[in-house]
Amino acid sequence: MASQKPSIPKGTRDFSPVEMSRRNFIFETTRRVFKKYGFLPIETPAMENLSTLLGKYGEEGDKLLFRILNSGDFLRGIGNSEVEHASPAALASKITSRGLRYDLTVPFARYVVQHRNEINFPFRRYQIQPVWRADNPQKGRYREFYQCDADMIGSDALVNEFELVKIIDEVFSELGLKVTVRINNRKILAGISEVIGEKEKIVDITVAIDKLEKIGIGKVKEELLSKGISQASLDKLDPVFVMHGDNEQKLDQLESYLASSQTGMQGIAEIRKMLEYLQTDPVSAGVALDITLARGLNYYTGAIIEVKSDEVQIGSICGGGRYDDLTGIFGMPGISGVGISFGADRIYDVLLQLERFPASAEEHTQLLFVNFGEEAVKYILPMLGKLRSAGVRAELYPDQARMKKQMTFANQSGIPFVALVGENEISAQQVTLKNMETGDQQLLGFDTLLTILRSQLS
Amino acid sequence: MASQKPSIPKGTRDFSPVEMSRRNFIFETTRRVFKKYGFLPIETPAMENLSTLLGKYGEEGDKLLFRILNSGDFLRGIGNSEVEHASPAALASKITSRGLRYDLTVPFARYVVQHRNEINFPFRRYQIQPVWRADNPQKGRYREFYQCDADMIGSDALVNEFELVKIIDEVFSELGLKVTVRINNRKILAGISEVIGEKEKIVDITVAIDKLEKIGIGKVKEELLSKGISQASLDKLDPVFVMHGDNEQKLDQLESYLASSQTGMQGIAEIRKMLEYLQTDPVSAGVALDITLARGLNYYTGAIIEVKSDEVQIGSICGGGRYDDLTGIFGMPGISGVGISFGADRIYDVLLQLERFPASAEEHTQLLFVNFGEEAVKYILPMLGKLRSAGVRAELYPDQARMKKQMTFANQSGIPFVALVGENEISAQQVTLKNMETGDQQLLGFDTLLTILRSQLS
Repeated sequence: MASQKPSIPKGTRDFSPVEMSRRNFIFETTRRVFKKYGFLPIETPAMENLSTLLGKYGEEGDKLLFRILNSGDFLRGIGNSEVEHASPAALASKITSRGLRYDLTVPFARYVVQHRNEINFPFRRYQIQPVWRADNPQKGRYREFYQCDADMIGSDALVNEFELVKIIDEVFSELGLKVTVRINNRKILAGISEVIGEKEKIVDITVAIDKLEKIGIGKVKEELLSKGISQASLDKLDPVFVMHGDNEQKLDQLESYLASSQTGMQGIAEIRKMLEYLQTDPVSAGVALDITLARGLNYYTGAIIEVKSDEVQIGSICGGGRYDDLTGIFGMPGISGVGISFGADRIYDVLLQLERFPASAEEHTQLLFVNFGEEAVKYILPMLGKLRSAGVRAELYPDQARMKKQMTFANQSGIPFVALVGENEISAQQVTLKNMETGDQQLLGFDTLLTILRSQLS
Repeated sequence: MASQKPSIPKGTRDFSPVEMSRRNFIFETTRRVFKKYGFLPIETPAMENLSTLLGKYGEEGDKLLFRILNSGDFLRGIGNSEVEHASPAALASKITSRGLRYDLTVPFARYVVQHRNEINFPFRRYQIQPVWRADNPQKGRYREFYQCDADMIGSDALVNEFELVKIIDEVFSELGLKVTVRINNRKILAGISEVIGEKEKIVDITVAIDKLEKIGIGKVKEELLSKGISQASLDKLDPVFVMHGDNEQKLDQLESYLASSQTGMQGIAEIRKMLEYLQTDPVSAGVALDITLARGLNYYTGAIIEVKSDEVQIGSICGGGRYDDLTGIFGMPGISGVGISFGADRIYDVLLQLERFPASAEEHTQLLFVNFGEEAVKYILPMLGKLRSAGVRAELYPDQARMKKQMTFANQSGIPFVALVGENEISAQQVTLKNMETGDQQLLGFDTLLTILRSQLS
């Protein structure tokens, strides 16, 4: 067979050992915190039936699904003229019945309904798996990427929202990143729409307000006018743009502004309750009410949460909120849930840029035995076994290569210690240990070797 | 939208928290051992270009690839008549250019060639990821399953084969399973074909011999005759069927039988060398020479390794071998590698059948606070935070539900301790701790609570 120049599909990535160790640092940290908060792991298949996925992510989302060609004679039962005249979309629906997971939320909703009789509600689940989107790849946007989700389903208590903020705070503290958690509530947004007399335009209003920081008040108003919102309504919106101060002060201003909206007042009460809980057990992250935060509005029904780095200019690195009826679409209505999702790829970029990955995240081999030939190998093997049993990550250079080549290997692999075993060492039943950083060498017995390695490597 | 009865594609599985914990026990054990032996993790994308995958798994394998429909207008540039007259296979090749990973070995070969300039050879890599095959699902065979592979590439030293046997031994010891490692060498099989004068028929001969245990000598000979092997050659094969004794005895018999074949003698020498290494640092698993072991013959060029459970009748639970030119197909010839793959799903079945999963594999919440209402919640939250900081997996029942419902939740979730905080506890600044197994209750201060939990849960 002709040799091929190897490559991988656009928008996908290989992960090298160094990248893997760093990614695992993020995943392990997140997983450890999820577990401490009582969340339990599940996994769902990479492929779901298209009936599960279609219609859940909007028209644009449907287009971004990766579809799997049916196996075998996928054209069977489809007439020639049907094939000929079908649009790509229509033909695709005939020759594909499965697609790759697009996020972890819809598969979770499907899981909850399918396994409702085995699940012990309220159910705290976490899930860390890749998802796939046929998006146009660009810097920081991939066609395969991981999501790290934690959701609590089957309880509408606000203490859940508090716990998610605690989790966010603990994960980012352990990752060594300073963040601000921005919070809002869909009911506040609904209240604003009510108060200005444009209840039905809630989507247009929040989409526009969400852009305030980026485009300024003038442009926001222009957009709202173009959406058919009256000048009178717009005038009533003005106080929203000038609310300021700390969370308490903003809430006070909101309270008088939204006084006539029951929904709006409910939203304020929910935010107040979260802040009350946070007073009993404070977090180190900043928590800021941001009434322009909209994020996936049609999905969330209560709390809306978004996390940004205080140190690096980058989009949201974690987000979530409450959804009151996610499982309804699969035949199980009235189950409230609230969840968050950590964006591992962006967190990776932030940690890399700030050089915050701890050295311990890299899991190098700790000791390399240089290979001076068969006699030495047989002397080394039992020692190697004992070192590994003692938990030392150790290896033997497998070939009797030139000394220089073996030392270069150790250097380039970042291995901190090298053991040399030649004729002298064998006859003395000892080992020469070389510290690759300092260059120091010591002739040692096995027990001393183990003691030194343990103290140096712990 | 109409409600849907949720389901997942045939041959795929959801994993519940209990199943996840057990699977993680297998993955974590394997990963820990791989690391100790100096193997480093990589990951490759779920989808590979079809040009990478096609032709690597035989005709049958090509058919079992899951293909991904090209995005957007996938029919663009394909004439109607082309669509009409194309066979499904021909059309598939026009409308798909990517497929799901079928194993971890070919993507690894592709990775090595693509990243040759960044890799520090000899390269020990491990990879634990799912693979997908459009096989007919049946008991124990799935369309999505995990492989756990460790390969050493860039060294042809036999000490690598020894190390793989050590890894196998250590993984199964830590999993608590008794196994036998069967070993063979492709060169011995080649030698046998040479000695009986049917060098070109090596594939037919080994495929037939591989069935010896299952179908017996008579049927094996019938099959060989039907493949055009002469009666004279068959007669020369007889000694192979009657070789017996321990490894040394079998090797002695093989040595005189294969004396005329240089390749065969080389195979014997390689097996002897592995056994010699094993004498310097013995394993607890059985290691048995089995000259009928063929396993993926066209792939392996030296050692062939297969592991079976001593306790449960099930197929191979781990296997591997040496391949001398895996990367040649991607333009990098002459790189020898050797590797093994653990079958996580079968290992899971064996552990389940033998009830060997340790209780510690399940990661329940350790303490549940019963929720008696808002006042108690605010008293509990700071304690909950301290317990979690101390590493206790703790949670608060989020809703003020009936006591019985909350206790049932704790029971069904397997939570060992429940904390009760009512008016009395709050005014005394204490907590009532209930041991769910014994039913014992104690009124305690926070420090004592923490001490007791730590001692009980460690």
